[in-house]
Amino acid sequence: MQKTAAGEIKAFLSLIVYDFDGVMTDNRVLVNEDGTESVMCNRADGLGVGYIRELGIPQLILSTETNPVVTSRARKLNLPVIQSCGDKRSALKEYCEQHAYPSRRVVYVGNDWNDLEVMNMVGYPIAPFDAHPSILSIAVMVTKTKGGAGVIKEIAENLDSIISLAR
Amino acid sequence: MQKTAAGEIKAFLSLIVYDFDGVMTDNRVLVNEDGTESVMCNRADGLGVGYIRELGIPQLILSTETNPVVTSRARKLNLPVIQSCGDKRSALKEYCEQHAYPSRRVVYVGNDWNDLEVMNMVGYPIAPFDAHPSILSIAVMVTKTKGGAGVIKEIAENLDSIISLAR
Amino acid sequence: MQKTAAGEIKAFLSLIVYDFDGVMTDNRVLVNEDGTESVMCNRADGLGVGYIRELGIPQLILSTETNPVVTSRARKLNLPVIQSCGDKRSALKEYCEQHAYPSRRVVYVGNDWNDLEVMNMVGYPIAPFDAHPSILSIAVMVTKTKGGAGVIKEIAENLDSIISLAR
Amino acid sequence: MQKTAAGEIKAFLSLIVYDFDGVMTDNRVLVNEDGTESVMCNRADGLGVGYIRELGIPQLILSTETNPVVTSRARKLNLPVIQSCGDKRSALKEYCEQHAYPSRRVVYVGNDWNDLEVMNMVGYPIAPFDAHPSILSIAVMVTKTKGGAGVIKEIAENLDSIISLAR
Repeated sequence: MQKTAAGEIKAFLSLIVYDFDGVMTDNRVLVNEDGTESVMCNRADGLGVGYIRELGIPQLILSTETNPVVTSRARKLNLPVIQSCGDKRSALKEYCEQHAYPSRRVVYVGNDWNDLEVMNMVGYPIAPFDAHPSILSIAVMVTKTKGGAGVIKEIAENLDSIISLAR
Repeated sequence: MQKTAAGEIKAFLSLIVYDFDGVMTDNRVLVNEDGTESVMCNRADGLGVGYIRELGIPQLILSTETNPVVTSRARKLNLPVIQSCGDKRSALKEYCEQHAYPSRRVVYVGNDWNDLEVMNMVGYPIAPFDAHPSILSIAVMVTKTKGGAGVIKEIAENLDSIISLAR
Repeated sequence: MQKTAAGEIKAFLSLIVYDFDGVMTDNRVLVNEDGTESVMCNRADGLGVGYIRELGIPQLILSTETNPVVTSRARKLNLPVIQSCGDKRSALKEYCEQHAYPSRRVVYVGNDWNDLEVMNMVGYPIAPFDAHPSILSIAVMVTKTKGGAGVIKEIAENLDSIISLAR
Repeated sequence: MQKTAAGEIKAFLSLIVYDFDGVMTDNRVLVNEDGTESVMCNRADGLGVGYIRELGIPQLILSTETNPVVTSRARKLNLPVIQSCGDKRSALKEYCEQHAYPSRRVVYVGNDWNDLEVMNMVGYPIAPFDAHPSILSIAVMVTKTKGGAGVIKEIAENLDSIISLAR
């Protein structure tokens, strides 16, 4: 699918990080009478995650709040997840240092206020089409896809053009 | 985010009241085989409620009908809730008197027939974009956002212009 | 809300019948892993049903298939329901005869193939905006609202113009 | 509904195969806290499947992944299902050989990457309106309907024109 060789893409991208709500979902949450929550994810993103994995690029879900629904989705997609980190920027900084990922080679896909600081830290901040204006304004790429409608798949299909966009 | 200082905004706004269905949701309800109900809320509103809380402005959910789903969402957002009040106007009037909130400093966000009377009582009646025409016609502000798509967040981001809109 | 007196409206309309799927829902069904089903109804229709009840006009849900979800919603709205009737036309004909409702004074709101015959029997066939073309072509009124988005509420708000539309 | 006799249609079409996610659903999946999944199907497709069954044309659901939700929906619609086949092309090839269905008389409705190979094998590859560009480009028919919004019903209503489209 990519015109660029997997090895070359992998040389540019050390890690792809996904905010959960508003990126892997449409930001809505179904609330049941007993308070349990459910969210709408997308099978297209499952394909996208699988494709990126085949290229050998590590992926991570990063979420401020602890939520069983995030844990469930991460398990299904077989992705590592950091939750209840409070400060996303510090959490990702630490994670990158541990794994020796240079932040300029990190993609972060986020959609709202609380992603602003962490997105300013990475080389490839990407925003879904319906992200907050403050996020859209700093993104190097805005997907055509809205949150929850297959953002990760669109990214997976465009990695070879994304690698040239680093700030 | 606001250009006006938090203290000044707080001087204008004593309380922000949310109708539940059609404001914090898109007015739809998922009905299960056993009759239990679920509704679609929005993480953006969670951010909005948190931001308003930081400004020190009290918030309240007001719902005619008693519904476990409202209780669940109120608990998650850590908001007080009045349910099964029958007459919303009387319920809010009493609540404001107890807390010494002048009704001209109260924001009420509602979307349908049964919000008309109570909205006529407050200084700042606000309606989501897709509210009933009778509600739109008395609102001092109509959000660009539809019910359930982040109405509270839009309000949170525009408090400094809202304070000048009192009837 | 109506300019016509309730008594006059009631003289024209003996019964209002709702197909369930595609009228009170958007025709979609949420299927769980264990096969249980849920559907998206609308609080607006709850208001509409309540308003029509206050006018004293009987209402009925008519569904070909037996489905616990229909039973649940009917119970919540406190509406009678006929299910698993196979042939909707015969079922409604019998129901009308039992209650001495002349079919020319019956409203039927339906959206698909299997409503065609029964809709041809009543005086006031009404279709949601997104009904099947064959249904739209025989309807005396097409609502601006799509199925599940508040069709009953739109009907409730327009009863005084509906009474003049009988075929 | 069809202008062509059922017998004639049946002579052209030996089997109609449906991919599940993105065809019988909108490709989204509701993820619950405990990891259980639900998907949004459509009652219109229920009517479509029933109509095609009356014509005497066999139908099949084909899904790469094993998922209880697919099993549930297949049982409700009383359709055979092949799951966890890994390679869809081989699975369908074997199925057709077992039943002596010539592949040029097979309809396959698919929406994404992993349907490409199997769709290239059949006489009648059909894609929903919102399928992946690579799928749209090889389809002999693109439905006006998006995945999950009644694709099968649209196919059921257009079988007499579909039979002339074989590649």
